[in-house]
Amino acid sequence: MQQFINSKESLVTEAIDGVLRTAGGRLARLDGYPHIKVVVRTDWDASKVALVSGGGSGHEPAHAGFVGQGMLTAAVCGDVFASPSVDAVLAGILAVTGKAGCLLIVKNYTGDRLNFGLAAERARARGLKVSMLVVDDDVALPELPQARGVAGTLFVHKIAGALADQGADLDTVATAAARVIGGLASIGMSLDTCTVPGSPKEDRIGPGKAELGLGIHGEAGVEQVDFAGARAAMEMVVDRLAPRVGPGPHVALLNNLGGATPLEMSVLAEELARSKLGEQIRWMVGPAPLMTSLDMQGFSVSLLPVSKADEAALLAPVAPWAWPGCLPVGTAEVLPMPDGLSPIPPMPSRDPATADFLKSCCAILIAAESDLNALDAKSGDGDTGSTLAGAARSLVDAMDRLPLADHTQLYRAIGQELSQTMGGSSGVLLAIFFAAAGDASAAGQDHVGALRAGLDRIRQVGGAAPGDRTMIDALAPALEALPDGMANAAAAARKGAEVTATITRARAGRATYLTADKLAGHNDPGAEAVARLFEHLAARLQVAQ
Amino acid sequence: MQQFINSKESLVTEAIDGVLRTAGGRLARLDGYPHIKVVVRTDWDASKVALVSGGGSGHEPAHAGFVGQGMLTAAVCGDVFASPSVDAVLAGILAVTGKAGCLLIVKNYTGDRLNFGLAAERARARGLKVSMLVVDDDVALPELPQARGVAGTLFVHKIAGALADQGADLDTVATAAARVIGGLASIGMSLDTCTVPGSPKEDRIGPGKAELGLGIHGEAGVEQVDFAGARAAMEMVVDRLAPRVGPGPHVALLNNLGGATPLEMSVLAEELARSKLGEQIRWMVGPAPLMTSLDMQGFSVSLLPVSKADEAALLAPVAPWAWPGCLPVGTAEVLPMPDGLSPIPPMPSRDPATADFLKSCCAILIAAESDLNALDAKSGDGDTGSTLAGAARSLVDAMDRLPLADHTQLYRAIGQELSQTMGGSSGVLLAIFFAAAGDASAAGQDHVGALRAGLDRIRQVGGAAPGDRTMIDALAPALEALPDGMANAAAAARKGAEVTATITRARAGRATYLTADKLAGHNDPGAEAVARLFEHLAARLQVAQ
Repeated sequence: MQQFINSKESLVTEAIDGVLRTAGGRLARLDGYPHIKVVVRTDWDASKVALVSGGGSGHEPAHAGFVGQGMLTAAVCGDVFASPSVDAVLAGILAVTGKAGCLLIVKNYTGDRLNFGLAAERARARGLKVSMLVVDDDVALPELPQARGVAGTLFVHKIAGALADQGADLDTVATAAARVIGGLASIGMSLDTCTVPGSPKEDRIGPGKAELGLGIHGEAGVEQVDFAGARAAMEMVVDRLAPRVGPGPHVALLNNLGGATPLEMSVLAEELARSKLGEQIRWMVGPAPLMTSLDMQGFSVSLLPVSKADEAALLAPVAPWAWPGCLPVGTAEVLPMPDGLSPIPPMPSRDPATADFLKSCCAILIAAESDLNALDAKSGDGDTGSTLAGAARSLVDAMDRLPLADHTQLYRAIGQELSQTMGGSSGVLLAIFFAAAGDASAAGQDHVGALRAGLDRIRQVGGAAPGDRTMIDALAPALEALPDGMANAAAAARKGAEVTATITRARAGRATYLTADKLAGHNDPGAEAVARLFEHLAARLQVAQ
Repeated sequence: MQQFINSKESLVTEAIDGVLRTAGGRLARLDGYPHIKVVVRTDWDASKVALVSGGGSGHEPAHAGFVGQGMLTAAVCGDVFASPSVDAVLAGILAVTGKAGCLLIVKNYTGDRLNFGLAAERARARGLKVSMLVVDDDVALPELPQARGVAGTLFVHKIAGALADQGADLDTVATAAARVIGGLASIGMSLDTCTVPGSPKEDRIGPGKAELGLGIHGEAGVEQVDFAGARAAMEMVVDRLAPRVGPGPHVALLNNLGGATPLEMSVLAEELARSKLGEQIRWMVGPAPLMTSLDMQGFSVSLLPVSKADEAALLAPVAPWAWPGCLPVGTAEVLPMPDGLSPIPPMPSRDPATADFLKSCCAILIAAESDLNALDAKSGDGDTGSTLAGAARSLVDAMDRLPLADHTQLYRAIGQELSQTMGGSSGVLLAIFFAAAGDASAAGQDHVGALRAGLDRIRQVGGAAPGDRTMIDALAPALEALPDGMANAAAAARKGAEVTATITRARAGRATYLTADKLAGHNDPGAEAVARLFEHLAARLQVAQ
């Protein structure tokens, strides 16, 4: 599988450089590449207790993403899924530890324990106060004496970080961190394995299956279970956590293992809040990628009982953006729908001349049905005629409901009718046309001004311009010519409609997908409809004169 | 492909509920499920200009994730990759728009334009001031008249949001937003397509290929290109953007399309900063998932020229966590390595009795080499004897360098020697043992106290306890009995070592992976080594007496 990397060897150092570049000057690294990869705060006050964590890379944003005020002082990064060396850890400790000492927060993997452990000894031999705590929050393997350290580690960073930031001494910070570790319980579930750079992807999880109780390095889970959707998945996870959860309020950390989409994670958050532990979960961190396993499509839940003191430490704001905050979990607030969604029904009024005018326009469109369908069959799905004729028939049926005597209201009412009876893009566009014309009429424009306002609006909303092979190619010149009389307008519309037969590259609407030879020689059906309408109106006017 | 959802139909509403639950009370929704999915701020001040955006779902955190102080007032969410209805958009507008009016920010897709456009007309007919702007930042298809709206939309939300938050009027907000839209340029690249819930995944991008210029709905890219790593990928993207970039400082938005890992995104950030446009990129937003395309393994870059006024609007803090901030791009700051990484070499001193003692211990381990290897072959890779004998030979060779007359320094020096000459976990653990013993000796402990301190530390760091089938099973009882004489200690060590042959479930070290029948009847080689050492010391003492 391909990845956006340059080489497996340079991956971690280049990624760390990218993190530093985009941290706004908050972070720096030690000059020990490629062997020593240590990210430190630039704004560090060495009179406070330093917090140093780290481990293999591939868990981003952990750990470099959590370096900053209120969380870690330094992160010691190994290669992907590989513990950093003793020298790297020692460099991290020495770089940030002052008289207040240093707390090492280590996830429970042999390599990390040993390398951080020996580095701690060396730092102590230099006279530094160093405490080390091992996080073992994974409850997936209850019979294993060495529970793994997973995403619950973030709670240790946060609570110890808040205390250190407040100036607490090493004993106080370490005691609080140890208490947090003692209360933690985490478990993960995944639908897929992760892709380790430079290695072929392991295809371990079959269709219809999920792994429950996996680690953060692609280790196989405790068991493969049948996957039956988000709710059942969260229930299984909650069932494993429940025996470890005492009474009282808890905080949950909902971690994206890397490859789950935000949509999936939000559904899982909802399921966690609805679960049998939901009542006890008063705060949530995430859902967010916090302790990932490269691109693993999975999640983990970590739970921690919350005392009053922990609450303040959890809620304290921090500098690292990767920490999404710890927020109270509530019900989803639902506001009533606003008034005014239903259109104001127009007050019907009678005006025989206007009724006749409208009916005759409708008759023209009804009569043009099969011609327009035939034209549309050349460039579309052959329904323009039926769509327009259907709308025209509906308008005739609605005649008694229309405010015929008030042209401003009539424009709006026609727009309203069309939006309800005419499907597709053209219905929406004509509804917008008449609504905008009504607004312009209300603002004092005459018919020409109102219709031009409608045209302007559909050009803006629809994005089509003259020459794009749409009805606008007939409508725009017609409205341009209308002040010089309906006959001129009709001639201009006809000319515009004929020009569409020479436009072999449509620039708006469905015809954009067609090739030139499909379009040449046929008028755009919308433009043709407009031309026929104006020609009818000109003839009608001539008869009346 | 499986996903953590319950059903395609309930996906978006359940996800929105999850977003609301975990927003700490900042967000609410309108009571229009399932058809109307509108997320609004609960802390909204309707005397300000409202910003409403939205579109199809599947782009999370856009758009609901950007609702909040300083950005959007409401997000109107469609189903996955489907525009919301006119009614939904109208509901959103009516819910949040006061006398100051409303700006609709719409990405350039026909459905969104039409539905937002008609909703705007309806809101205007209700007397509301509504402006609508269409974002068309995608430069992938320069000959297309309708450029798509992609991640650059976030800049519009941010800059218009800052102005609206400051109380600017609708004209001012809309003018600034239009100016931002005019300056935007974006393009994306992907190594894989996205997985649309309920649909099989399209397998369009072959091995060794990438798609350049794709949209955010899994539309095919402008072209498939050969993929040659992160640097070449970013160069291609920058080459497409460069012709659209004028002089002066720019801000870049580096967007994760969903499925790229944070490691990949950080490498891409580094490459963007190093690119030929890097000099002009003074600020960066991300790398972060901002406008995703479900789980697409890709990224996009959006560029915007930055005026002084825009700079303030870009940098203004906002409530939504999904906005990662806009930070100055710098070089990666490199700090010198700390002093003290190299261990302080001990001052050699002579003490013939201590030298004899050490040499005789080493001789025992060297003599036991093949026996211990044979034992280890039952439970490991058969090298415990060689490892210990090799360390012992090195220690004999180092005898002249050791501070033999100062037992505190001697413990530390032995730890140092072992960490340099002895590989593997056991080397680190013995190094820790002697370093901790040295610290305890420095603190005034006698030999028994010092050795017990060493034991305590390796139990903490290594995580093994008595009964776990390790050297501790002999060492712990031996140190327990040592105050009663070396003979008692030796007997206790021997008894402990023999017990390991009955421990058929190892709980630490490599033997944890072995089954009971492989372990039964054989002493743990580490415990056996300890027993032989104590037996030797007891015999030596008896001879001396």
